[in-house]
Amino acid sequence: MAAANFSCPIPIEQYPTVLLAHGGGGKLMQQLIGQMFAPAFATQGKSPNQHDSVALTIPNGKIAFTTDSYVIQPLFFPGGDIGSLAIHGTVNDLAMSGARPLYLSVSFILEEGLPMKTLWYVVQSMQRAARRAGVQIVTGDTKVVDRGKGDGIFINTSGVGVIEHDQAIAPHSVCSGDVIILSGDLGRHGIAIMAKREGLSFETTIKSDSAPVHEPVLAMLEAGVELHCLRDLTRGGLASALNEIAATAGVTMQIEEELISVPEDVQGACEILGLDPLYVANEGRFIAIAPFHCAEQAVQIMRRYDPKAECIGTVLGRSDRPLGRVTLQSRIGATRILDLLSGEQLPRIC
Amino acid sequence: MAAANFSCPIPIEQYPTVLLAHGGGGKLMQQLIGQMFAPAFATQGKSPNQHDSVALTIPNGKIAFTTDSYVIQPLFFPGGDIGSLAIHGTVNDLAMSGARPLYLSVSFILEEGLPMKTLWYVVQSMQRAARRAGVQIVTGDTKVVDRGKGDGIFINTSGVGVIEHDQAIAPHSVCSGDVIILSGDLGRHGIAIMAKREGLSFETTIKSDSAPVHEPVLAMLEAGVELHCLRDLTRGGLASALNEIAATAGVTMQIEEELISVPEDVQGACEILGLDPLYVANEGRFIAIAPFHCAEQAVQIMRRYDPKAECIGTVLGRSDRPLGRVTLQSRIGATRILDLLSGEQLPRIC
Repeated sequence: MAAANFSCPIPIEQYPTVLLAHGGGGKLMQQLIGQMFAPAFATQGKSPNQHDSVALTIPNGKIAFTTDSYVIQPLFFPGGDIGSLAIHGTVNDLAMSGARPLYLSVSFILEEGLPMKTLWYVVQSMQRAARRAGVQIVTGDTKVVDRGKGDGIFINTSGVGVIEHDQAIAPHSVCSGDVIILSGDLGRHGIAIMAKREGLSFETTIKSDSAPVHEPVLAMLEAGVELHCLRDLTRGGLASALNEIAATAGVTMQIEEELISVPEDVQGACEILGLDPLYVANEGRFIAIAPFHCAEQAVQIMRRYDPKAECIGTVLGRSDRPLGRVTLQSRIGATRILDLLSGEQLPRIC
Repeated sequence: MAAANFSCPIPIEQYPTVLLAHGGGGKLMQQLIGQMFAPAFATQGKSPNQHDSVALTIPNGKIAFTTDSYVIQPLFFPGGDIGSLAIHGTVNDLAMSGARPLYLSVSFILEEGLPMKTLWYVVQSMQRAARRAGVQIVTGDTKVVDRGKGDGIFINTSGVGVIEHDQAIAPHSVCSGDVIILSGDLGRHGIAIMAKREGLSFETTIKSDSAPVHEPVLAMLEAGVELHCLRDLTRGGLASALNEIAATAGVTMQIEEELISVPEDVQGACEILGLDPLYVANEGRFIAIAPFHCAEQAVQIMRRYDPKAECIGTVLGRSDRPLGRVTLQSRIGATRILDLLSGEQLPRIC
């Protein structure tokens, strides 16, 4: 937790921690919403709707809608915190439909006894992340659970974006000959969390890649790039994302290890921890699957936002076999199957 | 928990409880989503979007958007459970904008060790409630937290509805002379939860009023009834809802005790427990505030759905004083102030 410009709008001498009554519908809840959440999340002088639902106008009537709950531990980590993560993650889910992210809801499940200043730090981080991503927090909800029945802060953000394109960006659009483009290096979020959680230190501090990714996506769409599928590489990492798309599309895919960028310190940490970076979660990376004739233009646009963007493989063809759909060609030319993981690598990384 | 028609789609001999890996992004999460959530929440043969966001078409481009997290304890109670409550609550929040509820997202935060059959029961209840309310569950998310860091099941539902009217249904539209109409009797949800939680038994089993309320709202709008404000009477009950609206609108209000229906058993339980039914939470009740010339038509329409709907008071006039905005005239003619509560009456009732 970095030093914050700290002036908590709730008097912390009086309320050093969150109480059950902060979620009870009475004066304390009104104070928390009215003095902390509403001003922090206001945009253009307009506070989020404090009750029931908010009315919104959508330019062309075609929207993307998504939801994610964030339960990450620790709450603060190198490169981010649960607040910024909750904004980026939902912005990115909207972007994966090729939507322009517009509106978010924020719903807190707080544990009784949470330090008020921790909440305030998270709220400020959400405010900054929302501004940076150009989204408005328009409605919300606050619940408090008794001590020992939660874990500090859980956050749900749901999002609405507007779809301005007419493409069918979805796994079933993926077909033979398509090119798989990766937006940057892999593995930083998962390893940053693991290192912080386990108290491991490496030569360098590995920072999460948590960031919004809607800009390269919208830039590609505005340039007329044809996109067959987009997927952010969160839980389960690149390997799981490719497996899920391949299974839905009924295709096989091959990617090449030497084209996939893994930072040296992430690679080193993975070796120590016995992890495969292709399965480690990211929070600011995605793949775009585009037809061959658009791939070069796509990767050029993606490189404006991250020079490490790279074409890493291709869709080989249709297949109905349930296993072994995704293969990796290693640096020495050997081929291995990238399957879905049975268990869990890193719990609570988002 | 009532007897369910029990055939859990996850093999419970193998997975009797939820594991951390059910939220890990690998095979077990795929199984849980693919075999339990997706088929249960499918509508017209179409399963919810399992990844990222879902694309939706909105008829006229004007939507309502809302979010709520549900942390109720106990998970099962007379008249409902956390699953049906999570559907009704969010449907009702959309209805309070005068919107037609269309789409919901469902995000689970499950505690490791939760019996799989409990989850299945809740999922089935959500399925039934969504069908009854005519809404589609279109996208979702699943997280699992370690044992002792959650409380069985928390559910976030967010919702999108379409706004087909041109009215400004909001507290700032409320003005002098408006009539306050209550949709039914008060206090059943909060007392049902309290009785179950505390192991109290009364002569009759008090059932929660949890139910969707969009039908009377849409019927009023379709009949051309002018509505200035709608509000569901959840945490904090009728008294808190009126206080919040009066504060936002800058008006005073008076309601009459003898016009407010409180079931005899609820009244008795409130007396034993030292609670005021006007502050007890409901999950299927709302107030409509309408101009005088529309009030009779409004109450007639509301009575089609609940014969106990009644005009209970009026908006008196403008006021800038921060306290004492809402008063209650008692059966014997005395007047008392209904203020916002300082503390919390009933924690975790929704």
